[in-house]
Amino acid sequence: MSNHLNKCIRDGDNPDLTAERLTATFDTHAMAGELHGGPVNARRRLEITEAVEKIPELHDSKPYPFMSREEKVSEAARKLVVLTKHMNNIVDFSNAAEVFHFGNEVLGLEGHPMALHNVMFIPSLRGHGDDEQQKKWLTRALRREIIGTYAQTELGHGTNLRSLETTATFDESTDEFVLHTPQITALKWWPGNLGKSSNYAVVVASLIIKGKNYGPHSFLVQLRDENTHVPLKGITIGDIGPKMAYNMTDNGFLGFDHVRIPRRHMLMRHSKVERDGTFIKPQNSKINYSAMVHVRAHMISHQALFLASCLTIAVRYSSVRRQGFIDPKGQEVKVLEYQTQQHRLFPHIARAYAFNFAGTETVRLYEKVLSQIATGDMSLMADLHALTSGLKSVVTYLAGQGMEQARMSCGGHGYSLASYFNEIYGVAIGGCTYEGENMVMLLQLARYLVKSVGLVKSGYSHKLGPLVSYLGEKSEPNSLIDRFDVYVKTFRHIARRQTFKAAEKFLSLVESGTQKELAWNMSSVELNRASRLHTRLYIVEAFVRRVNEVIHFDVKNALTDLLYLHMNYELLDMSQYALEDGFLSTSQLDYIRDQLYYYLEKVRPNAVSFVDSWEISDRELRSVLGRRDGHVYENLFKWAKESNLNKHDVLSTYEQYLKPMMVEARKNSKL
Amino acid sequence: MSNHLNKCIRDGDNPDLTAERLTATFDTHAMAGELHGGPVNARRRLEITEAVEKIPELHDSKPYPFMSREEKVSEAARKLVVLTKHMNNIVDFSNAAEVFHFGNEVLGLEGHPMALHNVMFIPSLRGHGDDEQQKKWLTRALRREIIGTYAQTELGHGTNLRSLETTATFDESTDEFVLHTPQITALKWWPGNLGKSSNYAVVVASLIIKGKNYGPHSFLVQLRDENTHVPLKGITIGDIGPKMAYNMTDNGFLGFDHVRIPRRHMLMRHSKVERDGTFIKPQNSKINYSAMVHVRAHMISHQALFLASCLTIAVRYSSVRRQGFIDPKGQEVKVLEYQTQQHRLFPHIARAYAFNFAGTETVRLYEKVLSQIATGDMSLMADLHALTSGLKSVVTYLAGQGMEQARMSCGGHGYSLASYFNEIYGVAIGGCTYEGENMVMLLQLARYLVKSVGLVKSGYSHKLGPLVSYLGEKSEPNSLIDRFDVYVKTFRHIARRQTFKAAEKFLSLVESGTQKELAWNMSSVELNRASRLHTRLYIVEAFVRRVNEVIHFDVKNALTDLLYLHMNYELLDMSQYALEDGFLSTSQLDYIRDQLYYYLEKVRPNAVSFVDSWEISDRELRSVLGRRDGHVYENLFKWAKESNLNKHDVLSTYEQYLKPMMVEARKNSKL
Repeated sequence: MSNHLNKCIRDGDNPDLTAERLTATFDTHAMAGELHGGPVNARRRLEITEAVEKIPELHDSKPYPFMSREEKVSEAARKLVVLTKHMNNIVDFSNAAEVFHFGNEVLGLEGHPMALHNVMFIPSLRGHGDDEQQKKWLTRALRREIIGTYAQTELGHGTNLRSLETTATFDESTDEFVLHTPQITALKWWPGNLGKSSNYAVVVASLIIKGKNYGPHSFLVQLRDENTHVPLKGITIGDIGPKMAYNMTDNGFLGFDHVRIPRRHMLMRHSKVERDGTFIKPQNSKINYSAMVHVRAHMISHQALFLASCLTIAVRYSSVRRQGFIDPKGQEVKVLEYQTQQHRLFPHIARAYAFNFAGTETVRLYEKVLSQIATGDMSLMADLHALTSGLKSVVTYLAGQGMEQARMSCGGHGYSLASYFNEIYGVAIGGCTYEGENMVMLLQLARYLVKSVGLVKSGYSHKLGPLVSYLGEKSEPNSLIDRFDVYVKTFRHIARRQTFKAAEKFLSLVESGTQKELAWNMSSVELNRASRLHTRLYIVEAFVRRVNEVIHFDVKNALTDLLYLHMNYELLDMSQYALEDGFLSTSQLDYIRDQLYYYLEKVRPNAVSFVDSWEISDRELRSVLGRRDGHVYENLFKWAKESNLNKHDVLSTYEQYLKPMMVEARKNSKL
Repeated sequence: MSNHLNKCIRDGDNPDLTAERLTATFDTHAMAGELHGGPVNARRRLEITEAVEKIPELHDSKPYPFMSREEKVSEAARKLVVLTKHMNNIVDFSNAAEVFHFGNEVLGLEGHPMALHNVMFIPSLRGHGDDEQQKKWLTRALRREIIGTYAQTELGHGTNLRSLETTATFDESTDEFVLHTPQITALKWWPGNLGKSSNYAVVVASLIIKGKNYGPHSFLVQLRDENTHVPLKGITIGDIGPKMAYNMTDNGFLGFDHVRIPRRHMLMRHSKVERDGTFIKPQNSKINYSAMVHVRAHMISHQALFLASCLTIAVRYSSVRRQGFIDPKGQEVKVLEYQTQQHRLFPHIARAYAFNFAGTETVRLYEKVLSQIATGDMSLMADLHALTSGLKSVVTYLAGQGMEQARMSCGGHGYSLASYFNEIYGVAIGGCTYEGENMVMLLQLARYLVKSVGLVKSGYSHKLGPLVSYLGEKSEPNSLIDRFDVYVKTFRHIARRQTFKAAEKFLSLVESGTQKELAWNMSSVELNRASRLHTRLYIVEAFVRRVNEVIHFDVKNALTDLLYLHMNYELLDMSQYALEDGFLSTSQLDYIRDQLYYYLEKVRPNAVSFVDSWEISDRELRSVLGRRDGHVYENLFKWAKESNLNKHDVLSTYEQYLKPMMVEARKNSKL
């Protein structure tokens, strides 16, 4: 590791990039500790990267953008096998962060044939199978004797479980369930690894006994022969085709034509069906948010990493790309010198940090809530569930915006797949849709906010959850905008005002006789605005709390600059809400604007170091533009030469189409 | 054509979509006339679609998302040949709109092997070749005896022509130029069809005579043997690899190792080099904006069509997708019922119309300016050039936002390439980068705006160009926001205030001693904000002018709704600027917000008809989700079944990787 504060410096690097790194005011590896859960974890990330470097069979066979869909799927299967072989020597399997990083280095972002096996199939067996079922199937799944997935979503049905159409009808005469797909919209659609890899699945279907529908339940279904992998009788199965990203994953479709499974293939830890068809309800039917909260909390950190990856590419490239002049007599300048370039990149650097900190805090909060639940205290779960719904939506959306800005800031070369922007964006932007569509998520949070407004209005402010307690506070205008807390007070005012305004719109519609559900729909855009402002307030507060916690002096100073940049950018972006009621004056807004430009300049010398601190390796980044060493042009040329169309100097299309056309024309001209 | 007002209605369509069409209040084919340059053109579009329908060899060999890069390039070459064969029977070759539509139907959006031949190579020969050169080469190019392209951009150099590194050095001893690529950054990079298809190119290189650099000039260079297509000696050439889109086009790289061409291969209509090396300057060295203005003006209409394509997909799909409940006792509702869905789609419908109208007006303006130039009057060109720079930037960016909203509004199925969103977005968003990077474009407009502010400040308001004359007007606050003209006055106030503010920031920095170029850079984000507001004002005004022109009563009424939706949405979006100085009051803003929701509801019954009016055929749209007949689910299933991974029930990766893993595990468990 380099002796400089910026630990990415090496001999032989592009001097334009080294010059940027030499102006670092903080130790980038110390900063990495703040981003990656402490110094030990940050060191482990580097060690894993180094270990992978030494094992050629863990490396990409060729650049992913040159691979067809089939090659991608095959590469992922190959990697899965070799990765399993080396896993225990390189990572601590019980450490999720290590496994995650190892996966990013070796497999990349687009998935693999057993992704759902680990993340959904095994947890489903664990959560819903009774002891006997677990002994039989979970053991086999853990040993990888079988590959499984989880099939819930249908072609015509997404988030709304109540409307799933696949049926599992109990046949008492044979002691079996009959699984059936009554019509095309009932086809299972989207489950990862369903199409080609899995031979088993946990299938969600409506349980029907003696003509009565007991709602969705989980069933273990064998899909393919264990030896030949040929689909079993009555099963229609396949891949749903190419997608924006995740093209190493075989998302699949699945249809049943009266497929029979033994009664004991219904997962019976909670609900049960007895031999005579008696249905036994689960003892505790409370909704368990915890799995969703867990997934969404981790999504925030992953989105931060996606955004940071794109910014790493863009900020490094902007330091080696020279284009145009500021001083017409000087040499061409680095594009990072342009204020417009700084303005389209630096606020997103701040957001990537903010999202990382908010994500980490949310995961911590989740663990705290879990331990409270263990003692019977459920009070915080609703608060946290509402927050993570909002975070998931706001962060995926804003991260996507930042990633596209990063790509566009790289001009034409950003448009080439050599930059790898497109793949990162494709994977990340999927987060706006999966795990709860963003608009639906914002409305879930809004429901909680409206409830909270109700508490305040009826004098029960003391009953507000900790994450919404500011709704019960009064706003006091500030004469100055300078310190963290004054900014936070302003963000609180903005979120509170819009929350009350949107809630009041809804409530007054109801009062004036509009049906409640209709009134809700008529207020939903304003409610969603409130949800976004509430969430962005939380992100700012999490950022502030985190900066206050940092001990290392230089790191804290640099983060403080980034935080001020963030607060001014965010406040300007949502200033309409503070201007509307005169909470902010014109001169305050002018000050915020000036501060924004001041902090763009202040952040400038650390810009490369801020992205370097994420310590995303070249292997993980897979971007020619974003290389650590800054040697972009020679490697773009090398990359292009290796691409598929350059395997032959002359394409077969020449002989087939272009040559006959030209030869014919020449003949005619000689007539 | 159907007898209903909405001309897309057919027997057997999805009844949910038909129900939407039956509520149309206007004739969709009459509206098509407004969008496509009059009733004759609108009818011709349908006729061309019908003609293509009947000729199977003009159809896609298989869905484009299933094709590898090589297959796409081959498909485009095949199509080019058959398209040429049928062209004269189907379209009037002299009518650019007909040729454009025919190309969209047959080829799609991703290009073909001779795109640059027509658009750049031939115009370059025409513009820069002298009579003798035209006789020799232009004739051959027009007959398609050779395929050519235009090579300007280099690996390390984009818009800044001054810095191109490729040299053309005159060798008096042999009467030749020696073309050379001195280093890797000087490789020609990006030109379309350079990589594999073209055997000739017009190459831009720095002309050097007796050690003196005369700047960039154009040279005709043969790249490949006319018969074997093998690259000539000293020429390194190839494809630059896959991109976000345009993957049917072979964008290429090109390097020269002291390649010699005869002196007369320099295009000599303007500058000349004589036998003894004497350089003769062109007589008229004024910058000719007209080609750029022409291209950018047309880009606006194309972007409108891209956006409309995405909205066609999203609005139709939202009418057949049922998900969730508004009334919990009712059936699942069309997702188009949700206010959030309307809010993320309808304002973009309005923008697509606005962009189309602005584009059409700009093209008309361009033609007017051209005819003025012919009479020696250059006065309007600068005004129009500034406007088109802004339009290009604002429209490409906002269209991109709308397209991604459209995609996300379709949930998971929007993420599948079956939707075709990703391809349309990929092509369209390239427009933010090519033909002048958006930030650079906005700053070009800003330069003109600052000049205009200077005229106002020095009392020369009467000298302002017509497109900026409002900068010389005074703002008067309005007590009401109701009529078109009151909205327009407000948009003018907003644009004027920000333009003056940004200009004053720049001017005061200069006055206080900051170097002019540095001051410009320090003000550039604020200047760009002004450019955007100026451009969005123009778009609103063009929309108003167009609605005022419409004669057909029902069409005018429907467009008026769309215009109000547009004005309220835009004003709310930029309300910060009007609130800052109290030009708009809180109650006015509340009114605008209410109006926005009112017009969302008002537009709802016409939503499908507004997108249908673009009359984008299923063939042109290439989207399973956006089909005219609304039969989405069965066709998604059909599409998926045909995809590459489903050619075999069991993939080879099973035998190779997954089976050995499972068999091994089963063996071990039996030990």
